[in-house]
Amino acid sequence: MRKPTFAQEPIFAAVAVAVVLLLSGLIRPASAQEVLPSWNDTAAKTRIVEFVKATVTEGGDGYVAPYDRIAVFDNDGTLWSEQPIYFQFGFMLDRVKTLAPQHPEWKTEEPYKSILAGDPMGALKSGEKGMVDLAMKTHAGMTTDQFSKIVTDWFATAKHPKTGKPYDEMTFLPMRELLDYLRDNGFKTYIVSGGGVEFMRPMTEKMYGIPPEQVVGSTITTEYAIVGDVPVLRRLPKIDFVDDGKGKPSGINTFIGRKPIFVAGNSDGDYEMLRWVTAAKGPGFAMIVHHTDGAREVAYDRDSAIGKLDKALDEAKRRNWLVVDMKADWKKVFAFEN
Amino acid sequence: MRKPTFAQEPIFAAVAVAVVLLLSGLIRPASAQEVLPSWNDTAAKTRIVEFVKATVTEGGDGYVAPYDRIAVFDNDGTLWSEQPIYFQFGFMLDRVKTLAPQHPEWKTEEPYKSILAGDPMGALKSGEKGMVDLAMKTHAGMTTDQFSKIVTDWFATAKHPKTGKPYDEMTFLPMRELLDYLRDNGFKTYIVSGGGVEFMRPMTEKMYGIPPEQVVGSTITTEYAIVGDVPVLRRLPKIDFVDDGKGKPSGINTFIGRKPIFVAGNSDGDYEMLRWVTAAKGPGFAMIVHHTDGAREVAYDRDSAIGKLDKALDEAKRRNWLVVDMKADWKKVFAFEN
Repeated sequence: MRKPTFAQEPIFAAVAVAVVLLLSGLIRPASAQEVLPSWNDTAAKTRIVEFVKATVTEGGDGYVAPYDRIAVFDNDGTLWSEQPIYFQFGFMLDRVKTLAPQHPEWKTEEPYKSILAGDPMGALKSGEKGMVDLAMKTHAGMTTDQFSKIVTDWFATAKHPKTGKPYDEMTFLPMRELLDYLRDNGFKTYIVSGGGVEFMRPMTEKMYGIPPEQVVGSTITTEYAIVGDVPVLRRLPKIDFVDDGKGKPSGINTFIGRKPIFVAGNSDGDYEMLRWVTAAKGPGFAMIVHHTDGAREVAYDRDSAIGKLDKALDEAKRRNWLVVDMKADWKKVFAFEN
Repeated sequence: MRKPTFAQEPIFAAVAVAVVLLLSGLIRPASAQEVLPSWNDTAAKTRIVEFVKATVTEGGDGYVAPYDRIAVFDNDGTLWSEQPIYFQFGFMLDRVKTLAPQHPEWKTEEPYKSILAGDPMGALKSGEKGMVDLAMKTHAGMTTDQFSKIVTDWFATAKHPKTGKPYDEMTFLPMRELLDYLRDNGFKTYIVSGGGVEFMRPMTEKMYGIPPEQVVGSTITTEYAIVGDVPVLRRLPKIDFVDDGKGKPSGINTFIGRKPIFVAGNSDGDYEMLRWVTAAKGPGFAMIVHHTDGAREVAYDRDSAIGKLDKALDEAKRRNWLVVDMKADWKKVFAFEN
């Protein structure tokens, strides 16, 4: 048997591997970075840090093995803004304008007529039936690859109606830091959103460091078909699953198959998910992002049509869920702030 | 500023980390292990190894970034045996016997009457309607947590009807080695099976090193409910999604959200998945496990009621998919063989 070479000697191989990992940024020495720098030093930050520290402290009461460190985040209003309109609604409005030349009938049909007349709020009057039709007309009829490109192209050019910033800059910096912080401590981070899963997936890696397979969302039915000799998936105008409210625990169960130990949301649409996750045996942490900052973002809760936070806010007190006060607890809301 | 301590000095911290990783087996020095030891040194093994080597060789034509190294495996007949009956069918038969005292009507109703009379093949005569009813009666009506326990308990005691071995020993050793080999080379491994996702998930980590969130399968509808003050998910007697045939590409798209670069199957139920994965741009590898070994397992293909392999076998030649000949290419089929 030959004597092992330098590279085969385990300890030297280990050093080499470690140096490569360090250089590539896969391992970040915890002491080299401030934790959650955009969070003020308030009780909210302390509670999060204490939970994470307990989770990784072997032998402690709060210890959770890395395998079980699953964290789920709502998206609209929790990771990115949702006011004055859901981003995906903005996408639909722009799609209607793009597709209008192929649909002369839209000039007289609601909700398209109002949208084309520059009155998106008027479009809402066509109710759930109109909104479902709008969603299907703008989200179905193409292949999955084509839709992914349409979404990517839209994010590259569209601007937020209030700030004028590209939508992918409208994420909450403290929440992105929280995602990083959890991952640095061995958590696997997921999005669990009422939004369309294929509307989010092209962007989540870039925006949040979350790969497509860790995005749970609403789905439409797809159909396998051969075009020429090439297999494709066609998006049918048929809602498959709505990942909102009571649907969120089902979505987590179907896509992930086990219970997270950390959950973040911001509205009553997250209520059942918050309840379900915190009902698990063992450690569990729930937080609600409370939109209290009318200056830097938008202040809303119990009476808002979008992102209504009422029942979940009451329950937060009773169940000891952390309510994050954006105004008091966050140094910055968006990265682009001075 | 204080001088960094030993533990804070990056290179020493790196060594410590690397040693811990080595000790915990997370990093296996590639040179220390023979690759795919239960595979004979035939062309099949060579093709697999050459593909994987090309995938990890930076700068080469076949290089694929770790992020995109997704591999999907059918389960029945690809990772574990499927003859003479699907494991899940065996589970259903045992569930009927367990539940029979609560269902006196089953003594005269098919397919239950035949099952209770020890004639499971007779039960098949009740056709698809009977089989769906059987699946729903045995898989629904409980919470997800309860079902998980029922499955785990069944695997702990049930025996394979032909070998008498526990079902979890009926996995193909060369395929488990292939899963390990791919993961050692940065692949993320998934199951994409026609079987029920919640029938597989309690076992896949132990059997294959695949966590629940990397199992794609058929699903039934679940419903959020509060029992006492505790939220649960109830399994309803309603099929949600069938992850077989044309459903498999849709299942991959819904659960994973991007195209794998490696796919393994064994029957015509995998045909569309094989086509879809290999139609992606860039490198892609498809393989079929061909059941040619009547001595160590079961020999079957074109005429089999279970795991029929006909169209996909013809297409394999045309499309250069690797057909693995179990008899010729595998040294061992099961780990328990002498």
